[in-house]
Amino acid sequence: MEPTLPVQTPTVTFETSPDQYKHWKLTVDGAIATLAMDVKEDGGLRPNDYKLKLNSYDLAVDIELADALQRIRFEHPEVHAVLVTSLKPRIFCAGANIFMLGSSSHGFKVNFCKFTNETRLGMEDLSANSGVKMLAALNGICAGGGYELALACDEIYLVDDGSASVALPETPLLGVLPGTGGLTRVVDKRKVRRDLADAFSTLTEGVRGKRAVEWRLVDKVVAPSQFKDAITKRAQELASQSHRPDSGPGITLGPLNPVIDGDRIQYQYVLGTIDRARRVCDLTISAPETAQPTTTDEFVQAGDQAWALRAFRELDDAILRLRLNEPEIGTVLLRAVGNKQSVLDVDRALDTNRDHWLVREIINHIRRTLKRLDLTARSLFAIIEPGNAFAGTLFELAIAADRAYMLDHPDEDNTIQLSVMNAGSYPMSTGLSRLEVRFLGEPESVKKALDHDGPFDAHDAQAFGLVSFAPDDIDWEDEVRMAIEERTAFSPDALTGMEANLRFAGPETMETKIFGRLTAWQNWIFQRPNAVGERGALTVYGREGRPHFDWKRT
Amino acid sequence: MEPTLPVQTPTVTFETSPDQYKHWKLTVDGAIATLAMDVKEDGGLRPNDYKLKLNSYDLAVDIELADALQRIRFEHPEVHAVLVTSLKPRIFCAGANIFMLGSSSHGFKVNFCKFTNETRLGMEDLSANSGVKMLAALNGICAGGGYELALACDEIYLVDDGSASVALPETPLLGVLPGTGGLTRVVDKRKVRRDLADAFSTLTEGVRGKRAVEWRLVDKVVAPSQFKDAITKRAQELASQSHRPDSGPGITLGPLNPVIDGDRIQYQYVLGTIDRARRVCDLTISAPETAQPTTTDEFVQAGDQAWALRAFRELDDAILRLRLNEPEIGTVLLRAVGNKQSVLDVDRALDTNRDHWLVREIINHIRRTLKRLDLTARSLFAIIEPGNAFAGTLFELAIAADRAYMLDHPDEDNTIQLSVMNAGSYPMSTGLSRLEVRFLGEPESVKKALDHDGPFDAHDAQAFGLVSFAPDDIDWEDEVRMAIEERTAFSPDALTGMEANLRFAGPETMETKIFGRLTAWQNWIFQRPNAVGERGALTVYGREGRPHFDWKRT
Repeated sequence: MEPTLPVQTPTVTFETSPDQYKHWKLTVDGAIATLAMDVKEDGGLRPNDYKLKLNSYDLAVDIELADALQRIRFEHPEVHAVLVTSLKPRIFCAGANIFMLGSSSHGFKVNFCKFTNETRLGMEDLSANSGVKMLAALNGICAGGGYELALACDEIYLVDDGSASVALPETPLLGVLPGTGGLTRVVDKRKVRRDLADAFSTLTEGVRGKRAVEWRLVDKVVAPSQFKDAITKRAQELASQSHRPDSGPGITLGPLNPVIDGDRIQYQYVLGTIDRARRVCDLTISAPETAQPTTTDEFVQAGDQAWALRAFRELDDAILRLRLNEPEIGTVLLRAVGNKQSVLDVDRALDTNRDHWLVREIINHIRRTLKRLDLTARSLFAIIEPGNAFAGTLFELAIAADRAYMLDHPDEDNTIQLSVMNAGSYPMSTGLSRLEVRFLGEPESVKKALDHDGPFDAHDAQAFGLVSFAPDDIDWEDEVRMAIEERTAFSPDALTGMEANLRFAGPETMETKIFGRLTAWQNWIFQRPNAVGERGALTVYGREGRPHFDWKRT
Repeated sequence: MEPTLPVQTPTVTFETSPDQYKHWKLTVDGAIATLAMDVKEDGGLRPNDYKLKLNSYDLAVDIELADALQRIRFEHPEVHAVLVTSLKPRIFCAGANIFMLGSSSHGFKVNFCKFTNETRLGMEDLSANSGVKMLAALNGICAGGGYELALACDEIYLVDDGSASVALPETPLLGVLPGTGGLTRVVDKRKVRRDLADAFSTLTEGVRGKRAVEWRLVDKVVAPSQFKDAITKRAQELASQSHRPDSGPGITLGPLNPVIDGDRIQYQYVLGTIDRARRVCDLTISAPETAQPTTTDEFVQAGDQAWALRAFRELDDAILRLRLNEPEIGTVLLRAVGNKQSVLDVDRALDTNRDHWLVREIINHIRRTLKRLDLTARSLFAIIEPGNAFAGTLFELAIAADRAYMLDHPDEDNTIQLSVMNAGSYPMSTGLSRLEVRFLGEPESVKKALDHDGPFDAHDAQAFGLVSFAPDDIDWEDEVRMAIEERTAFSPDALTGMEANLRFAGPETMETKIFGRLTAWQNWIFQRPNAVGERGALTVYGREGRPHFDWKRT
């Protein structure tokens, strides 16, 4: 029941590297990296369906941006500031490609926006948690998603050439929202006065020059002749304010090379298997089996082969593939297997060395991957059986899940364990740790659980509130099977809405507002005939004829 | 493009009184009021289309509940606790009527939920701001909206008869969310652990007895033989903890008796006129012209005729009629006219006497009405011309608006003015005052504006950031006309989403989460074929055949 026949998007893969980039150029000059957009018109995911004109982007472009940010984090610890700009004269970025959006299915649109939002939030994370400051250098047209990209930077400089402006023309032109954080960041991050934000968000031509500064839309406008000097100078100033530890060299992020065989994807530490008939994915992460780094030197030496980094890069990749390529697989069974102690040893090493740039980046990466899991619109059940490795960092998977089932076996050893890493190293987008969110109603239980010495068996785990259900060996199989069967029979949409509400108990932040308030409204609009119907604004854009609106307000 | 042919709902009016109630019985016994639900099956808004069985409700039922709460606030200052229960044996409330929902248009569903949400939040407001504690006494079946009604109370007692349970069966049975605050209040108010909330929200049969207490879903379960005594005792305890000033008698809320003539509705202080061709409503509120109460005795004597109460009761009624009965009127021009000084005098009287129960209730009512305006999905432009009365309390209308246009006239006097009432007496649902939200980016401007002595002319108003635009007399007419024409040409859905984001800059609260996160997701689901399509779960409920789902998750 899509309003227009959506085009099938080919299987999406998320791995790339700078030498393969089609759309971005990443250069590093001392403490300053430059990320320059130069989108190749026929380099999109579906080059026959749309051309990426005027530095407009699709998912292919954003996958490169996300990769470039990873390279800056891990391969370039010397970078303390990033200039985000464009190589096309008088064009910064025209935003998400409208013909791509207009011809994509609802699910693709939603997941495209989710990924781009995660990438933008990753830029803010890079600034806040890695100390790499971001400066948007707008050399020309900057509209819609282009301005939203700029909004994700710490500061925005705009060339003052009499024509360059910033704009959010989505509402007046396309009948949709600036949904990549635009509305939220305008009022909540840049704190533009809400009536001016209202006027701005309906001005197709945008705002330029002095007024753009007065309205707080950009930080500075600079004459074209002085633009290059101004942005270079400002990038240097920002770099000098960075709190990033100054200690290269970086490590290299190699390819993950998963082996894909039908409905099975096998990485080194992560295994995903799909049961298509049941619409269930088993996602298993294995504890390390070999010695892991314990000192900063060993971490640098291990590079991308350290379990803590590799396993979570693999998990991240698996989640993204699942989201985009397997929309019908509605339930994910999370399993952690292997030697619990080896995970706890890794946690100790992460905690001990957390001030080192690389260890900090590894922790940051695990945190972002866990957030990606929180935001994945699939039901997540953790399955905790003998041989499990749900300890410390891996235990976060169990409390990221909607439910955790733990087998209470009379004979076999089945325990879980916490570590110092559960005490706030991986806050959710709400700003609270998963344990804090879990125990909103009894905050003393967080401390109680963390103070507990050693493993929890199923009985203790349930008594401490760490798992949802702990059936014994007689009930286990039936109870878990029935819970899964029941779950997979419910309306996928109701589950998405339910999980998006229950998972984010507690405070809201700009980040949760973007995924909750803004995205939920955008998804609603993405279903509305006024946007996506045969004569909806998004559908008819660029074609003959004007959109046709049902004028009823809701 | 509604998925099923929606039934036309007759024009809705919102005024009623206890002697006209069909569905509720309000009795007052000293400090305890009892609000007992006894829904008349054929007393709904469209009695030919659905029967309100098992104490299920529609908008007609909720309008009476909202009225009863108003009576408790104004007519019964002696009430310090309310028992919310049912007169039907073994049935508390089965929730919103499903056949009503299934046969309503999208817009009606959304506005029905908005009103019921406002009523539930009004119950919490009654507890927090009037000191009237609410106790839900669940004497039997309590499902969906029934449990959501209970969740809006301070405490929940459930009869322990072996069958009575609380349940949120929306997701498993209907493919929608418990959207009247249910999901939010379970985790954010009652702080049910999120994995247990997940299990609970998928259990059609709900949870009863001891487990309901353990999961924090109810506060107490009581054997049937002791139920009446237990709830009476608890209501008395709650009443004794109330901070409501103990000083009757109440005042009587008489009917508003607006005169309706075609597209014009005339109350005593509020005038609404609709320009159907332009899809614009002019909503004008007049300042008082007669002497207003200045002492508490005078307030009691004036009763419902005091301007501060009457004018905002009228405004509230006008907003509700507009929402439900005029969906195509997308833009509201807010005007305040008359003697500014008389509004400032009222503000002084409100401020001076704010500790008196009645004045407190008047201020509470104005606050709730302004919140209702914030939540109204229509574009709001304040129009400030000579003769305007945008001062103090009425100035809140100008900053509740998406934009305010103020005529900068060279000859005629056109000024606005603040009062102490703008300094936090009417917080938004975010918890901040409208001035604080306006100046998120420059908090010092709040104090600057409030410290300013006397009126602001158009130039000052703009310099202080209090209005959006101040065209002079040459540009005024064209600029305002063009702004309105432009606004009314945009996609109504995009505007709804845009305004819902920009108006609520700043922090989120449980209240804003209900209207932002929860409602936005519910509205999305209310558009999805899995819920409302021909074979959607909401559509087929109670008919032959099972729902058909598109399994794709988004």
